[in-house]
This record gives sequence, C-alpha cells and structure tokens, in this order.
Amino acid sequence: MLRLLIFCAVGETTAFAAGPEHSAVSARIFLSLAIILISAKFFSHVAERLKQPPVLGELVAGVIIGNLTLLGFNGLEYLKTDEPIELLAQVGVILLLFEVGLESTVTEMMRVGWSSFLVAMLGVAGPFALGWGVGAWLLPEQSVYVHAFLGATLTATSVGITARVLKDLGRSQSAESRVILGAAVIDDVLGLLILAVVTNAIIAAGRAGTLSFGDIGMTVAKATVFLAGGLWLGIRVSRRLFGFASKLQTGGVLLATGLAFCFFFAWLSTAVGLAAIVGAFTAGLILEELHYRDFKSRGEHGLEELVAPIASFLVPIFFVSMGIRTDLRSFASLSVLQLAAVLTIAAILGKQLSSLGVLGKGVDRLSVGIGMIPRGEVGLIFANAGLALMIGNQRVVNQHVFSAVVVMVIATTILTPPALKWSLERKGTRQEKLETRS
Amino acid sequence: MLRLLIFCAVGETTAFAAGPEHSAVSARIFLSLAIILISAKFFSHVAERLKQPPVLGELVAGVIIGNLTLLGFNGLEYLKTDEPIELLAQVGVILLLFEVGLESTVTEMMRVGWSSFLVAMLGVAGPFALGWGVGAWLLPEQSVYVHAFLGATLTATSVGITARVLKDLGRSQSAESRVILGAAVIDDVLGLLILAVVTNAIIAAGRAGTLSFGDIGMTVAKATVFLAGGLWLGIRVSRRLFGFASKLQTGGVLLATGLAFCFFFAWLSTAVGLAAIVGAFTAGLILEELHYRDFKSRGEHGLEELVAPIASFLVPIFFVSMGIRTDLRSFASLSVLQLAAVLTIAAILGKQLSSLGVLGKGVDRLSVGIGMIPRGEVGLIFANAGLALMIGNQRVVNQHVFSAVVVMVIATTILTPPALKWSLERKGTRQEKLETRS
Repeated sequence: MLRLLIFCAVGETTAFAAGPEHSAVSARIFLSLAIILISAKFFSHVAERLKQPPVLGELVAGVIIGNLTLLGFNGLEYLKTDEPIELLAQVGVILLLFEVGLESTVTEMMRVGWSSFLVAMLGVAGPFALGWGVGAWLLPEQSVYVHAFLGATLTATSVGITARVLKDLGRSQSAESRVILGAAVIDDVLGLLILAVVTNAIIAAGRAGTLSFGDIGMTVAKATVFLAGGLWLGIRVSRRLFGFASKLQTGGVLLATGLAFCFFFAWLSTAVGLAAIVGAFTAGLILEELHYRDFKSRGEHGLEELVAPIASFLVPIFFVSMGIRTDLRSFASLSVLQLAAVLTIAAILGKQLSSLGVLGKGVDRLSVGIGMIPRGEVGLIFANAGLALMIGNQRVVNQHVFSAVVVMVIATTILTPPALKWSLERKGTRQEKLETRS
Repeated sequence: MLRLLIFCAVGETTAFAAGPEHSAVSARIFLSLAIILISAKFFSHVAERLKQPPVLGELVAGVIIGNLTLLGFNGLEYLKTDEPIELLAQVGVILLLFEVGLESTVTEMMRVGWSSFLVAMLGVAGPFALGWGVGAWLLPEQSVYVHAFLGATLTATSVGITARVLKDLGRSQSAESRVILGAAVIDDVLGLLILAVVTNAIIAAGRAGTLSFGDIGMTVAKATVFLAGGLWLGIRVSRRLFGFASKLQTGGVLLATGLAFCFFFAWLSTAVGLAAIVGAFTAGLILEELHYRDFKSRGEHGLEELVAPIASFLVPIFFVSMGIRTDLRSFASLSVLQLAAVLTIAAILGKQLSSLGVLGKGVDRLSVGIGMIPRGEVGLIFANAGLALMIGNQRVVNQHVFSAVVVMVIATTILTPPALKWSLERKGTRQEKLETRS
C-alpha cells in the first residue's frame, strides 16, 4: 500500500537547494552514501574473514576510497571535505557513544574495583608520558602542546576489540576480562579529562598566547561537574521523563525520547565546553531498561534494539570517512613511518605499565596489559579532534601526525587479537599443568 | 561495557568544523534534533487523541516552532534555513518513500484492476483541471506555469490517512479499500508525470523563456523509461545483489545493502532528471522479501523492520520542517485565506470525479471519492518542490501560495477521517437494511 506518492521534479529542485551548487550536493549525497555503505560492508567482510574486527575493514575501505587519486581517479576526492557526509558521520559517532553508554549502567560503573582503578590510572599515565616523550623526541620543532596532544592520543583504550576476542575465546567472565573492562570505563573518564585539559590549553594558547593553570583547573572542574552533575540529575530526571513519555499515545515515542535525551546531553556538554560525545555517552550511561520498562512491558522493542539499526547506518560513515582522510602519500615519508613505528611501540609499552595495577593473585598480568593495547576507534576520534585544533595558523595535528596515528591504530588493532589469544592460552595451559600436578 | 571512550575537547573542535561559524552549527544541530523530536512526538500524541493522523501533529509542531517569533521568541528562527536539518529531512523523505515502496511489490501493482486505473486517471485529471482553474481565477497576475503548478499540487492522493481509517473501521479488505489503494499507486505515477512535465516546463521557461513540446515529451519519456527500465533491470539485479550480499560474513549487511540500493536509485533518478524520491520509491517497489530470504532464514530482522527505526528518527524531521516553513502571518491576508478555501474545495470536488471510474456494482462510489481526498504529506512535498522553482527572479510558489497549500493539506487531512467513517457506516447501515429485508 502506498502512503505517499512519487513526485517528480528535476533533480535541481530538491528542497535543501538554494542555488545550483547546493543541489548538486543534494543528489551526490545519495551516491556517496551508497558507495560508503557498500564498501564498508565489503571490507568488514574481508576483515572478519582475516579474523580482524569489522571496524578495521571500514577504515581500510575509507583509506582505499580516499586514495583512489593515486590510481588517477579523482571522482571521489570531494568526500574528503563533504559537509553532508561530515554531518552524518558526526551524528553517527554521537549514536555510537550513546549505544556504548547504554551497554553499561551507573551502578556497574560504581562497582568497578580498585584493581580496575589502578590499572586505568597506570594505563593512562604510561602512554601519556611515553607519547609526550615521543613527540618531544621526534617532533622537536613542534610546540609542547603538540607533544602533550600526542600523549593524550595514546591514553584511551578501545576495549571493543578485546571484549570481542575474550568472547570468542569464551573468557568473557574471567578475572582478566572483568579487570580490563572495568578499567576501560575509568580509562575513558581519565582520558577525557586529559584530552579536555590539553585541548583547552591549546585553545587558550591559540587565543591569548598563554596557558594559565586556572584554565586547566576550570576544565577539570567543568568536566567533573558535568559528569557527576549530569549523572546525578539525569538519573532523577530520566525516570520521570520516560514515565511521562510512556503515556503519549503515538508510535515511536521511546526511540524519539531516547534520541532526544542523547542529543540534548550532547548539546549540553558542548555548552559547558566539552565534546558532544561526552554528553552522548553520559546520556547512554544514565538510561537503563528500568526507566523505560513501561514501554517494554507493552511489548515494544527496547531502546538498544531501536538505536542499533540507526547506528548501523551512520557509524560506518564515521569510520569510512576517517579512513578517507588518511593520505597514503604521507607514508612515503620516512619521518611519518618512523613516528608511526615509535608511537606504536609507545602505545604498546605504555599500557603494559597498567598491569602493575592488578591487585591480588590469579589474574594474568600480561593478558591484562595486552588487553589494554587496542586504540581502535578511540585514537581516531582523538586524532580527528586534533585536526580541528589550531595554534596560530598551524594545525596541531597535521597530515603527517594524523597518518602516523592511523598507522598506530591499525597496528595496535591488528596485533591485539593474536597476542591476547596467545597470552590467554599460555595461561590456560599453565593453569591446566598446575591443576594436573596438584 | 565500554567499547569506546569518552573524549573531551571543547565544543568548538568537533570534526565537521573548519571555521568557528561552522562549529556553532555542529553543536546546535543536536539541540535542534532534540527539540524537533520531542515536539513531533508530543503533538503527534495530541493529534491521535483528537483522532487525527500523527503526521498532522508533526506539521502543527513545526508550525508552532516556526512561528514562535510571533510571540517574540526568535531563538529558533535559524531552523527555517538550517542546512543540517534540511539534509536530515531530505534523507528522511527518501527513506519514507523507500519504506512505502517496500510495502508493495511490482506484482501487486500489476494486479491492480481497471477500476483503480480509471479512478486514478479521473482523480488526477479532475483536481489538475480545477487547480489550474483556481490559479487562473485567483492569481491572474501570475504566469500560466504557476496555475499549472497549482493544478499539479492537487493531483496526488495521500492514502496513508485513508488506509488508517479503513483499518480502524475493520474495512481494510473491503472492495472500496482495494479500489482506493490500487488507484493511489497509479495516481502516484500519473501525478509524478504531471509534476515532472510542469516542473521541467517551468525550468525551460526560466532558462530560455520558451517551452517546447519536445521538452515535455522528453520528460515523459525519461520518467517512463526510468520507471519501466528501473523496475525491469532492478528486479533482475536485486536478487543477485542480495544473494551475493547474503554471503558476506559481517553484521548489518542486509540493512546496508538495502539502504545502498535505495540511495543508488535515488541518485540515479536525479541523474536522469527526476526527483530523488522517485528512485527511492522504485527501489522499495523492486525489493521483495524473496530477494533477501537468505537473511531472514538465518533469523535476521527483515528489511522493513530495520528501516523502520531509521525512518522513525528522520521522517518527523521532514514534516516538522515543512511546518516550520509555514508563516502564520500570511494567514492574516484575506487573499491567502480565500485561495486556501477555494483550493480545498477544488481538492475535494476534483477527487469526487474519480468515483465515476468505479466499474461494476457493490462498491460505494461516495466512499471511494472521499477516500481519495487527503493530500497529506504529498501536497507538502509538491509545494516544497515549488518553493525551489524560479521563473526569472520570482519563486513559482511564493510564501502566500505555500501557506494556502498547507491550509488545504490540513483541511483535507482533518476532513477525511470523519467523512469516510460516516460514509462507510451509512453504506454499512444501508447494506444491513437490505440484508434484513431479503
């Protein structure tokens, strides 16, 4: 049955067109979306066949699209700066963080033990110091802010890949798994704080030329107040909000309310000077099934289930467009490859420090350290933020540094699954031997 | 569990920002989305409470947001020309047409009988002639193209509302229902052709100052070839495409392939000079469950189920932003109200002609005529296309005409449910009487 009708007008007359250039965009966006979606899925498939996480495939799809010009094809060059694609990618990353937030609850976060806390602290401090050092060593001509930013880029763990490996090996409920996943939560908050401080310091430096400790304190205070206050208030407000929403007699209320909640928090966090994704993550953390049980008890789909298809449409756009921005030509430079290699080593070694934070016995420290290695999406999001930062007229993260970060992300992502598998099986064998002996 | 991490940077550094103005947009879009989603659902609820279709509520939500300036609040004025919102609205209307297309199959379209065909022909010719006449009468200073465009705006039936009423009354399987829904399909193709011809004539007139019959023939030929050729080729290609896609070993392949298919057709139709939504509808018509049974047999969700949440997020953005463009101040003008009133009468009377197309007995002609009345979303999409059309430096559809069309849409949408209910119950009573007598 047809609810609506086909309408026909020439392509130039679609609505978001004021002038002819804009209308060209309007039609092109659909071709861009088709190309991005198909290539993302094809290379995700290839990645999974090679036992790699799908996100790697999406990244590679982007790298290929972004470097077709090396093969003499320039037809997709526009994607590097296409605003509609950027917008959809941004909405995608917001929804990804919201989804991730939905997966854990505030209570679960509170329950994370001291082991996780220490692992997270060391796992942030180690890479930050090493990354800063690498910057100072290999990019001496750059300002101290760039070095600090490089350090910040290395801090955050992307546990998605680790979680997947643990699950595939049937170790999701192991002690190592609990420590790693718990640490990742705190890791994120700490990484957030470091990046906030570094970023705001860079902006302050760019504007006034000076960095005050007051600014740093202000950033930390803002982030803490936002996270703590947002959580406190959000929990109180969300239950009422969803209770009220469940009384609305029209379709799609749960999804609309959930998304509006996420977008409102995303906006709110930018209003206090934080990144939009912080708000989206906080919103996801706040919302629990309990808050919308009135909807579920009526047999409606849960919020996670409803957000999944939207994320599955928009999130790949983010990762593919990250790949598109990676210029393979910059790999021809020895300095980029050198920076990438040293960054990768710093990223791996830095996280091994975190294993010292494991308290008690029976937990394999090496496995915890390896599990914390992958930077995955996270490093890219950081690098992406850096691309937009300016000191004077210079980008903090230039094309060379960006490419080196991408190499580091790819390397840590590829190395983790086999390394973790080896490390856990080694431990398993040792334990079995011990058990056989006793 | 956290797959990703919170990252923090000041709001100004989000990615799709080159300069500071752009970054302001980036944060604002999230607030805009929250406001649009919440108000859409709230007013949908109010509409449903008043036994009106939800789309009317979304429209009203937009009208209120767009006219807050009358109450002295200008904070949301930017939404009238906001490009990110326009982009999301456009993707929304593409997905809506795709969804509608998914609801019917090519075979079902073929099976539509002569009654439906005649009803559709008369239902297009009547309003087109009356609308043209109304234009010539009330807007004599405007060119003949404007009159023709006004006629085109009245042609298409939005059967969603009728279908809903029929369903609520338990008459979905009645003879009237089959004739109306069948006619709506053909209606759409005819409306499409008329609008294509009128639009291209206006563009030709705007460019060269002349309208050639060759251009008209060309448009009709293009549209016919695209629809027929697209259907023919699409059916052959889609089964293979989805067969191939079902072999990809990664998540979300069905949704990505389906969306890519839709977006590719949307782009293709603009490439041959038709509107993107024509392609999206055609893509939906082509895809049948049969094509992706490999996915469903693995227990995955069907394509319609996967597209629904995405549409439920983006479609309201389209209708709310339609409402936002309606300037209530133009209603203060007597000429607008006069035009709106006469247009509404033309819209209603024009469709009554269609009931003469009903062949055979046992079908209540009045109910068919009433069922064809609502213009709903369709009239708005047409009017929206007209807003972008220019003759010389003048818009073909100016703010006054646009407002009058919106009033016509609201009026036909509000009138249909009670009228159809009355007409069907009247027929029901008559039939019962006949049955009692015999």
